[in-house]
Amino acid sequence: MLNILFLLQSSNTVFSAGLDIMEMYKPNQERLRDFWSTLQDVWFKLYGSPFPTAAAINGHAPAGGCLLSLCCEYRVMCPNYSIGLNETQLGIVAPTWFQASLRNTISRRESELALTLGKMYTTDEALKVGMIDEIAENKEKALEQATAFLNRFRKISPMARAMTKQALRSKDIVELEDNRSQDIDLFVYAVNQPAVQKGLEVYLESLKKKAQK
Amino acid sequence: MLNILFLLQSSNTVFSAGLDIMEMYKPNQERLRDFWSTLQDVWFKLYGSPFPTAAAINGHAPAGGCLLSLCCEYRVMCPNYSIGLNETQLGIVAPTWFQASLRNTISRRESELALTLGKMYTTDEALKVGMIDEIAENKEKALEQATAFLNRFRKISPMARAMTKQALRSKDIVELEDNRSQDIDLFVYAVNQPAVQKGLEVYLESLKKKAQK
Amino acid sequence: MLNILFLLQSSNTVFSAGLDIMEMYKPNQERLRDFWSTLQDVWFKLYGSPFPTAAAINGHAPAGGCLLSLCCEYRVMCPNYSIGLNETQLGIVAPTWFQASLRNTISRRESELALTLGKMYTTDEALKVGMIDEIAENKEKALEQATAFLNRFRKISPMARAMTKQALRSKDIVELEDNRSQDIDLFVYAVNQPAVQKGLEVYLESLKKKAQK
Repeated sequence: MLNILFLLQSSNTVFSAGLDIMEMYKPNQERLRDFWSTLQDVWFKLYGSPFPTAAAINGHAPAGGCLLSLCCEYRVMCPNYSIGLNETQLGIVAPTWFQASLRNTISRRESELALTLGKMYTTDEALKVGMIDEIAENKEKALEQATAFLNRFRKISPMARAMTKQALRSKDIVELEDNRSQDIDLFVYAVNQPAVQKGLEVYLESLKKKAQK
Repeated sequence: MLNILFLLQSSNTVFSAGLDIMEMYKPNQERLRDFWSTLQDVWFKLYGSPFPTAAAINGHAPAGGCLLSLCCEYRVMCPNYSIGLNETQLGIVAPTWFQASLRNTISRRESELALTLGKMYTTDEALKVGMIDEIAENKEKALEQATAFLNRFRKISPMARAMTKQALRSKDIVELEDNRSQDIDLFVYAVNQPAVQKGLEVYLESLKKKAQK
Repeated sequence: MLNILFLLQSSNTVFSAGLDIMEMYKPNQERLRDFWSTLQDVWFKLYGSPFPTAAAINGHAPAGGCLLSLCCEYRVMCPNYSIGLNETQLGIVAPTWFQASLRNTISRRESELALTLGKMYTTDEALKVGMIDEIAENKEKALEQATAFLNRFRKISPMARAMTKQALRSKDIVELEDNRSQDIDLFVYAVNQPAVQKGLEVYLESLKKKAQK
């Protein structure tokens, strides 16, 4: 799932990321804890980054992929893909930091619908509710447009910018910092529920069928 | 005032509710306390319901009627009615849990205007600001559309859904739980103010005149 | 900078205000502390005013001018001006109470963009994102329209209205009350940074050049 590119102004590097749902299906318990702890770390780094961040979304972005793009300050997405925190469709719950990332982006009202329904939004729907900021024709344009956003900060004091962003996002970050291990426990407990394992099996089957078409 | 129907997926039952403003005019003090305590209970049940909820609004929905529809996750309303938390127009204050229910639904900016003005919105205005989600031609259609919303959860894990909703709404609920008796005291004190009793008298007179037309 | 008129229903007086950026450039330290403390006082009075308030904006409203108009409950603005919390462009940070005033008015999403970019909005852009409520042809019309807003409260109980507004805004106010002196320290520290002084110099030069054209 190398379909989201994250741009960070600091290093001019581009990296891509995706969550491996396979980690959650018939999991090794130790790996499962590490997996979630690592995701927490990535979220702290990306949601709390002092640098401007943007995501160029060039593929479907369910669950963790959606989360990481929501951590950025700007999202450009190519047409005909879908994006959303679809956890309830898998029988699991998007934890409070997922919810906070969404509520930082779209309205509280839309967040409740999005999260309870586990709704996947088309590119057009995502633009309409504000889950993304721009649509781009293709990956190259998406990178261009995301870069154009980052360039808007060229003349802004990096220190003033970072402190402003931190003031806006710190409550969400502190909340997870205070609950890291409970959050891991809850995730591990939920994933191990038979109903959730069954849900993941069905989901993975449906992905396989799609891939075969 | 049997003009709002509440649909709960759990029981497939339909019930309707309305607040009796007569309880507040020249009140029996003991009944007044019970009245408010009962409303708190209904709010806890409805706003915090683990089940999907929707309101079909087939009549005017001022004050408590508006509140109860705001407790639901979705609102369908028939044309040519009005809805709003019009407490300031009666000289009283919508308490924090009324305010929280509104802010869970419409923008913070619109909430301030709505609450300070005690504004009643027409069906069209309510749709525009997001206080309702859909307009329905008539009561039957309203029930159909509200039911269609509830059916969107058929394939969603009830447990995951309930935990997600709870995470989103729990802060509001805990706030009232921690302040139930002070909230009752404040309501009873406010209703007994001569200016409020005078305001209720004028309001009830105006309702009588409307009814005679 | 007498280009924002504040209307308060209580006294029928009109006053105007603007922040003098000169106070921040090569500052006298004692005056700098007094300047910020005074601004805090004005904010407490205006943001927390029990009376209805409206701003008629008849000129550019950067930084402090924008802040004071955001303290009001309604904003009417003349065409071809700009408004915004442009602090990051000056190398400083809009403190939490500036941020709270903005987030009380526009969406959380737009607030992050506005604050990190230090974005100045045109009159049309400000209307679109909800930073202002109406556009007025000229100053006289702006005063008329702002007054019309205030008149909407004529029949509303002043006590009920004031308590409702207070319930909506009190958290923001308590937060600054609890941090007044730290907030002054932070401001004084930031303003004295060489990079900030340099930024202010450049900004003041650019204003001079504009004035000469």
